[in-house]
Amino acid sequence: MSEHRPTRDQELKARARRVIPGGMWGHLDVKRQPPGYPQYFERARGCRMWDVDGREYIDFMCSWGPIILGHHDAEVDAAVRAQAEAGDCLNGPSARLVELAELVVELVPHADWAMFSKNGTDATTVCVTIARAATKRRKVLAARRAYHGAAPWCTPSLIGVTAEDRAHIVHFDYNDPESLRQAAAEAKDDLAAILVSAFRHDLGRDHELPTRDFAAAARDICDRTGAALIVDDVRAGFRLHMGGSWELVGVRPDLAAWSKAIANGHALAAVTGSDRFREAASSVFTTGSFWCASVPMAAAIATLTKLRDIDGVAHMHAMGQRLRDGLATQAKTHGIGLRQSGPPQMPLVLFEDDADLAKGTLFCQEALRRGVFLHQNHTMFLSVAHTAADIDQALEATDAALKTVVERFGAA
Amino acid sequence: MSEHRPTRDQELKARARRVIPGGMWGHLDVKRQPPGYPQYFERARGCRMWDVDGREYIDFMCSWGPIILGHHDAEVDAAVRAQAEAGDCLNGPSARLVELAELVVELVPHADWAMFSKNGTDATTVCVTIARAATKRRKVLAARRAYHGAAPWCTPSLIGVTAEDRAHIVHFDYNDPESLRQAAAEAKDDLAAILVSAFRHDLGRDHELPTRDFAAAARDICDRTGAALIVDDVRAGFRLHMGGSWELVGVRPDLAAWSKAIANGHALAAVTGSDRFREAASSVFTTGSFWCASVPMAAAIATLTKLRDIDGVAHMHAMGQRLRDGLATQAKTHGIGLRQSGPPQMPLVLFEDDADLAKGTLFCQEALRRGVFLHQNHTMFLSVAHTAADIDQALEATDAALKTVVERFGAA
Repeated sequence: MSEHRPTRDQELKARARRVIPGGMWGHLDVKRQPPGYPQYFERARGCRMWDVDGREYIDFMCSWGPIILGHHDAEVDAAVRAQAEAGDCLNGPSARLVELAELVVELVPHADWAMFSKNGTDATTVCVTIARAATKRRKVLAARRAYHGAAPWCTPSLIGVTAEDRAHIVHFDYNDPESLRQAAAEAKDDLAAILVSAFRHDLGRDHELPTRDFAAAARDICDRTGAALIVDDVRAGFRLHMGGSWELVGVRPDLAAWSKAIANGHALAAVTGSDRFREAASSVFTTGSFWCASVPMAAAIATLTKLRDIDGVAHMHAMGQRLRDGLATQAKTHGIGLRQSGPPQMPLVLFEDDADLAKGTLFCQEALRRGVFLHQNHTMFLSVAHTAADIDQALEATDAALKTVVERFGAA
Repeated sequence: MSEHRPTRDQELKARARRVIPGGMWGHLDVKRQPPGYPQYFERARGCRMWDVDGREYIDFMCSWGPIILGHHDAEVDAAVRAQAEAGDCLNGPSARLVELAELVVELVPHADWAMFSKNGTDATTVCVTIARAATKRRKVLAARRAYHGAAPWCTPSLIGVTAEDRAHIVHFDYNDPESLRQAAAEAKDDLAAILVSAFRHDLGRDHELPTRDFAAAARDICDRTGAALIVDDVRAGFRLHMGGSWELVGVRPDLAAWSKAIANGHALAAVTGSDRFREAASSVFTTGSFWCASVPMAAAIATLTKLRDIDGVAHMHAMGQRLRDGLATQAKTHGIGLRQSGPPQMPLVLFEDDADLAKGTLFCQEALRRGVFLHQNHTMFLSVAHTAADIDQALEATDAALKTVVERFGAA
């Protein structure tokens, strides 16, 4: 009798290998996470998630960003049920489209208008297309290693991508105004846009909020040249500031891309823009079969209204700070070097002297065994559903996990 | 006292003009349809839809394709409710991903594997990327005027698009084997793929099923060169044949793109492929925040299972033929020339001598007044929810509408 009956996760992985190339694709492929992390999930409530083998986790990934009020938020669920009962995918939009566009324009200071789609990549692509239509120029400045989506012009891998797909992308270094100015000079009179993430959240690298100098330099170049300043707020949107993440540095973009948290997990993306780009936005042809579906729009209205009314940003900031402070204290106690970066609502935790991520991997594995779902080198996410009690329970697990890391690798 | 109080549709359009560029974007923009067509909808059941002013229509657009079992199909709704109650957008997929991939591989003869995304454009773009990754070549042959999505490389408008976005697209004429061979010759040893619609369904032009000669020529070129034959089944998928539309001409693609009807209106797209392209498919990086959401996958499993079990294709064919026969008889009676093309499940109705679409516009307006929602120059769609009684009721309206067209324009 074998004691090693496969888990349900292992069974599903084996079946998947037959009918899905490599068993999974993209960022949700668990091969990018430490061994032992589950690939398949069964259900979720609030900030808790259960995998297909019934293991419960306090979740700090929030489905890689989309879950911002927690799973099965009562207000969002009620809005979704009501809209689904009426109709979702119709011959045109419902009134929810107009209500949502009005709400977004009210919440976001730079926005005079909004358009909606499904993927963050749709939104960044539409922003670039509008910028090119408005300026009749081609060059787009983007930060080296920044993630702006998975279309050929921006996906992190060059496999299956042609040189022409990237022909008009010019790189600069995030938070380096001089490299931005050099890139703009390189674009000469063909500069259509500066495309910049809400903050520097490159995979596996300490996160950095934008400096005021950098943001001001980007704004200044666009003002001087007529190019569009595009903030990619897909990952950070509505976690740092309800009006757009660059409100924190006092700079307003011309265009912004949104998705992830906008509808608490329902498939929706948005582009917002100023009046200067309205005509160009109406001139481009962009669409998708489900872009006017009303259920995600009803979910977005409920999500954004609640986030505003309860000051969700402040709650997530406080809970993220509680986690950060607790981890910092634990690291000091155990005598191990941690680098915590990013805004508290979107933490990244890296270990000192851990180029091969061995410490980070063990830390995440040990936390997982104790019911806490972390990521070793990607932005994590807090939600409104995380309470102080959840954070404190998670910190008990991280304390034990850090102890194990020190036992294996020694203090540092 | 004015008697012309604005309708709710007019009120919403006025509000939309302030917060949405041009009031609407893309294919659902009612400015592309005859005056009088509503922009905003309230609810739907089966093949019936109600606009925001409470007017009821027998619908022949099916939300531009996605609705294939009818709105609020009981089995799909039950599957959706159960999955939503568990979880939709999680830290990874649920078991629905594997179940759906297995079902698609079972249904589609060319498919050894499947991947999922949100938009038809995602699926066509991923197919092209996989073809380029597999062949390490760049050129993609596509039919002139064919619609393959709304990304810069394929959107019908060139506004905001650069020449480089289209650098490796080579055109041929649909159903013209010789022009296909010429395009392949032009691509020389750089041919990555032939991308071809399930049938010729260009806007405003008589639809044509692929000829066996044309399909065989496409297959032959790909077999000789190692290029990928990609069938874009986004619009037609699961309405012509459950195994893919080119089963009707006995030719199997290497890769296929699907979306629209796959989940009866829930946002989902798919790529299927043969084993020859499995490794390439696993090598590209493509992803989206909501691509593993479980509710649309549960909807797809319910939709495809039911379509198969009840032979939905045969029902839609029969109802489409009933509509076509009825219209043909009416046109003969009224002495007016109609050109009906496309498969009966996806009809296009054009008038003879109607270059400016004046007859088609009036016909659609008169049908709409009588509660029948048609389109003057785009593919229409039947669903499983259309009954003989619905078709017969619609034919009463079209008879009166045709009479009005003849009164205005004379017999022809």
